[in-house]
Amino acid sequence: MTPARRDHSSWMAAALSLAARSTGRTAPNPGVGCLIVKDGKVLARGWTQPGGRPHAEADALAHAGNAVRGADVYVTLEPCAHDSSRGPACAALLSAAAPRRVIIAAGDPDPRTSGRGMDRLRAAGIEVVEDVCRGAAERQQAGFRVRMALGRPRLSLKLAVSIDGRVALPSGESQWITGEEARAHAHMVRAHSDAILTGRGTWEQDDPALTVRLPGLEERSPVPLLMSATLPDLPARLGDREGLLLRTAEELQGLPFNDILVEGGAGLAGTLLSADRVDRLLIYRAPILIGDDAPGAGRIELPNLSAAHGRWTLAQTRTLGTDRLEIYDRTR
Amino acid sequence: MTPARRDHSSWMAAALSLAARSTGRTAPNPGVGCLIVKDGKVLARGWTQPGGRPHAEADALAHAGNAVRGADVYVTLEPCAHDSSRGPACAALLSAAAPRRVIIAAGDPDPRTSGRGMDRLRAAGIEVVEDVCRGAAERQQAGFRVRMALGRPRLSLKLAVSIDGRVALPSGESQWITGEEARAHAHMVRAHSDAILTGRGTWEQDDPALTVRLPGLEERSPVPLLMSATLPDLPARLGDREGLLLRTAEELQGLPFNDILVEGGAGLAGTLLSADRVDRLLIYRAPILIGDDAPGAGRIELPNLSAAHGRWTLAQTRTLGTDRLEIYDRTR
Repeated sequence: MTPARRDHSSWMAAALSLAARSTGRTAPNPGVGCLIVKDGKVLARGWTQPGGRPHAEADALAHAGNAVRGADVYVTLEPCAHDSSRGPACAALLSAAAPRRVIIAAGDPDPRTSGRGMDRLRAAGIEVVEDVCRGAAERQQAGFRVRMALGRPRLSLKLAVSIDGRVALPSGESQWITGEEARAHAHMVRAHSDAILTGRGTWEQDDPALTVRLPGLEERSPVPLLMSATLPDLPARLGDREGLLLRTAEELQGLPFNDILVEGGAGLAGTLLSADRVDRLLIYRAPILIGDDAPGAGRIELPNLSAAHGRWTLAQTRTLGTDRLEIYDRTR
Repeated sequence: MTPARRDHSSWMAAALSLAARSTGRTAPNPGVGCLIVKDGKVLARGWTQPGGRPHAEADALAHAGNAVRGADVYVTLEPCAHDSSRGPACAALLSAAAPRRVIIAAGDPDPRTSGRGMDRLRAAGIEVVEDVCRGAAERQQAGFRVRMALGRPRLSLKLAVSIDGRVALPSGESQWITGEEARAHAHMVRAHSDAILTGRGTWEQDDPALTVRLPGLEERSPVPLLMSATLPDLPARLGDREGLLLRTAEELQGLPFNDILVEGGAGLAGTLLSADRVDRLLIYRAPILIGDDAPGAGRIELPNLSAAHGRWTLAQTRTLGTDRLEIYDRTR
């Protein structure tokens, strides 16, 4: 790596941290970070604001004013090329502000922008540097990228399980399999999700609030979704939060969310796994054994063992108290 | 740690490596290592020989001859104090050889020796240093120590499982859940076990050879044990290897082994777990999902979830190809 590229990586890492502030609050827009740097000093910082606007670049430019001329702008996603009723295209704003360079982590898969954002910048005489920290940016934008590729939100299935993969006793008792640290981590994942999906069984048995119960993050509770083929209406129990009732896994298609966290029982898990709608597994594993006859990941029809192989890759493990978190990505 | 104690630890680590050569070949004796050092140089090395005799100290002393006088002897377990028809007590052999010091990792829990081995050495005018690398030695001797404490071998239950803890498809298909690296590792564990226990279901369905199939280790196959309440006799299929037929978990009591590896299905696992006879879980976990209705760790009767907690501690994890090994110890 050249020294210039290493400098770019350090600034981009800071821009990625800014983007992380917006995770779960910008749907259907992606969460983006922007850092404006001149003479080795930070002029301004921006990130996608709650609800998705202003975009990160507009947010940063508003703070920097005329000083942007000749500066370097670091942005974690290619600036958008399409004007909208909610604001001008970021590529146009940047062209007008005339920085020296725009350094971009990853291209925008949105067909309205893909490549055109960079073209507009270059046409305005701005140097464009691509693919700085691209892998990290793509991981951060994974939900948005799944939505662009598959036309539906990324689904992360959370399961709190025993060593032998059970989510409850045969009696249905499931509180608690994992400990406090694991449950707090799961609430943090809720805060970073756009929506939370549960099933009728969990809804009626556990009476879940589906809110974020972490100090200071209560306002970041995701949109509640309930999947049931049989329930007549969405129950009123959600307070003033607007929720959605889904009848089938097909109704996930087109939903305006990037990341949905699935927290249900074996029924919902099996439905989504059998329909191959799960993109990520968050397995919180407690060091206990529960035994057969207890529910687990639900029914999955497999003709043979080789059909089970190759679908999941262990991406990360982490210790949470006496429990472990295992994150698996769907191999696509 | 004083410099002298740090030196002791380095030599003892070498003695523990020697002891590891005998793992699984010395039952009912423990596998011990011995290193004789004089003027900073190794005079002789010894370890418990196959079948349990000669002991490590006798093995090392036979190689060192008269040069032992004034030397330091490192031994991973307190030298035995009891004469036997198979040879004199190591404490007597050492007293006659007159080293300057005997450095001992851990005391011998065998009531015929416990403390008396050290007493005999001190009575002969030899300095005794205790508890050097004691933790590592006790872990290495865990099977022997369980046998001394509970009057039965240590049982390690091996399960090759999916993310959701299943050991087979509902059809019974179980070959293969884990990959080659995991299976090779499991064969290494076989080579380090005194005996291998399976159940009637696995015996009749999988026709297991219960041998070590690693190049150069074929001779280290453990004694085959079969547990079945109903089978009339031990089947003849073991070739010329002497095996044992056990009727119940109670018959494990008093068996002349330190370490038994359990490789069976959900039936045997459930029987042993319900009887609280499992001291260690070796979970080889593949990144696959199998789903409910498939067997796992067997039936375990639990009144509630709190009864499941506190029994197991995750001691170690390790990556084996795309699989993971999780080792849990029974909390006692």
